[in-house]
Amino acid sequence: MVETITLYTAKASPFAQRVELALEESGAKYETFQVDLRNKPEWYAPKVNPASKVPAIAYGGPPVPPSQPSPESTKLAESLILLEFVADLFPTSHLLPKSPVQRAKARFFIDAVSTKFLPKFLGFVVRGKAEGGEALYKAIEELQALIEGKYALGDEWSIADAALTPFLARLELSLRKGFGGFKEGEGTKLLGRLKEGTKFEVFWKYFENVTQRESFKKTFDEDYLVSAYEKRFGNLRAQSEKKTA
Amino acid sequence: MVETITLYTAKASPFAQRVELALEESGAKYETFQVDLRNKPEWYAPKVNPASKVPAIAYGGPPVPPSQPSPESTKLAESLILLEFVADLFPTSHLLPKSPVQRAKARFFIDAVSTKFLPKFLGFVVRGKAEGGEALYKAIEELQALIEGKYALGDEWSIADAALTPFLARLELSLRKGFGGFKEGEGTKLLGRLKEGTKFEVFWKYFENVTQRESFKKTFDEDYLVSAYEKRFGNLRAQSEKKTA
Ligand SMILES: [Ca+2]
Repeated sequence: MVETITLYTAKASPFAQRVELALEESGAKYETFQVDLRNKPEWYAPKVNPASKVPAIAYGGPPVPPSQPSPESTKLAESLILLEFVADLFPTSHLLPKSPVQRAKARFFIDAVSTKFLPKFLGFVVRGKAEGGEALYKAIEELQALIEGKYALGDEWSIADAALTPFLARLELSLRKGFGGFKEGEGTKLLGRLKEGTKFEVFWKYFENVTQRESFKKTFDEDYLVSAYEKRFGNLRAQSEKKTA
Repeated sequence: MVETITLYTAKASPFAQRVELALEESGAKYETFQVDLRNKPEWYAPKVNPASKVPAIAYGGPPVPPSQPSPESTKLAESLILLEFVADLFPTSHLLPKSPVQRAKARFFIDAVSTKFLPKFLGFVVRGKAEGGEALYKAIEELQALIEGKYALGDEWSIADAALTPFLARLELSLRKGFGGFKEGEGTKLLGRLKEGTKFEVFWKYFENVTQRESFKKTFDEDYLVSAYEKRFGNLRAQSEKKTA
């Protein structure tokens, strides 16, 4: 029997959106609590996640308001562990295939997202590393080679897609709107290279497929992100322009 | 139906031993091929694992000698993915619990091994970082707090134990025999601190439980490792003594 699920999340967090996507796709009934990442409730670390990060899930226990978590519920954290948890809770959903080989392929894709794509994404978009654009371009090329069809594993959406999509959506938005640690103009320049010709056709078709799903539309708030990025990277850029002035 | 399993492995590799432990504990029939890590067969990367690392599994396909892998078998890599793969192939074994919450706890333990323990293990034992001993001491303290009973999750051995044991066994051996990137005497000094009093009682009892299993004895070759470490760290120390001389 599936017990009550409370997801502690934040609209800004791609890690948290991974789990929102899986919960939406599973058809689970669940409650969410938005954690203010700049001003976390004082009960959050001691009562929900000692690492003080989102996402986290409180599972089971008596019915309580999310802001008063019960010691009797099980607290779980780490987005990739939560993806597997949701897949385990709903084994008849399409979150992970049944075949051990296909499950291994899902995990191999997720591992590539973590170890190959994410460091380059963070390097360019967040930290604005020199040569970061070129490294990210190559990482997207490698990622594209792993996409098997409409979704990461082929015809069926899976947690492999949940692991990647929140980062792709933020990447596209950052490049398109110029929000990031990179120098002005570098975002649209990279986006132009990625849209040029047919080299990234599979990638962009994939991007369309995953972002057109209801689960994505329901869990991605572009207006919220634009306003958050304006605050964050607007200040950053102003500071760095001051420094170089 | 479980198909033929060929494990590409190497006695020196703790990552490969993880998968050997899981296969032994699963009761699987499998074949092994020892890859010479200093002189890998030229067919290994193109035909088995493009990353050219062990462990890797060839699964299914026609019966072939391991040195002539068939293009028809599925090739899988990455030790933690292979642990989950073996658990998926043998769902009635005790490799992972049935309960989604317990499975999440197994993965949380494995994540702590990867992100908290391994970097400190490598930092001290392999790279001999200054202050590495203190960092490793603290990492073992944190790890101990996650051990729930006889094994990582409690009464039953699981892939959480498979993920950790090969590193613990190499750690104990390195400290005891003084093999590592650390300065002479620093290994036995840390081992002394870990054996002092009752602070690490849970940890050492755990160490005994996991290393007494048949699966461990069958897959850990201390004489082989001692001779490999003598070559590797003997040279290293001779070089560093030359430098400081
Ligand atoms: Ca504990």
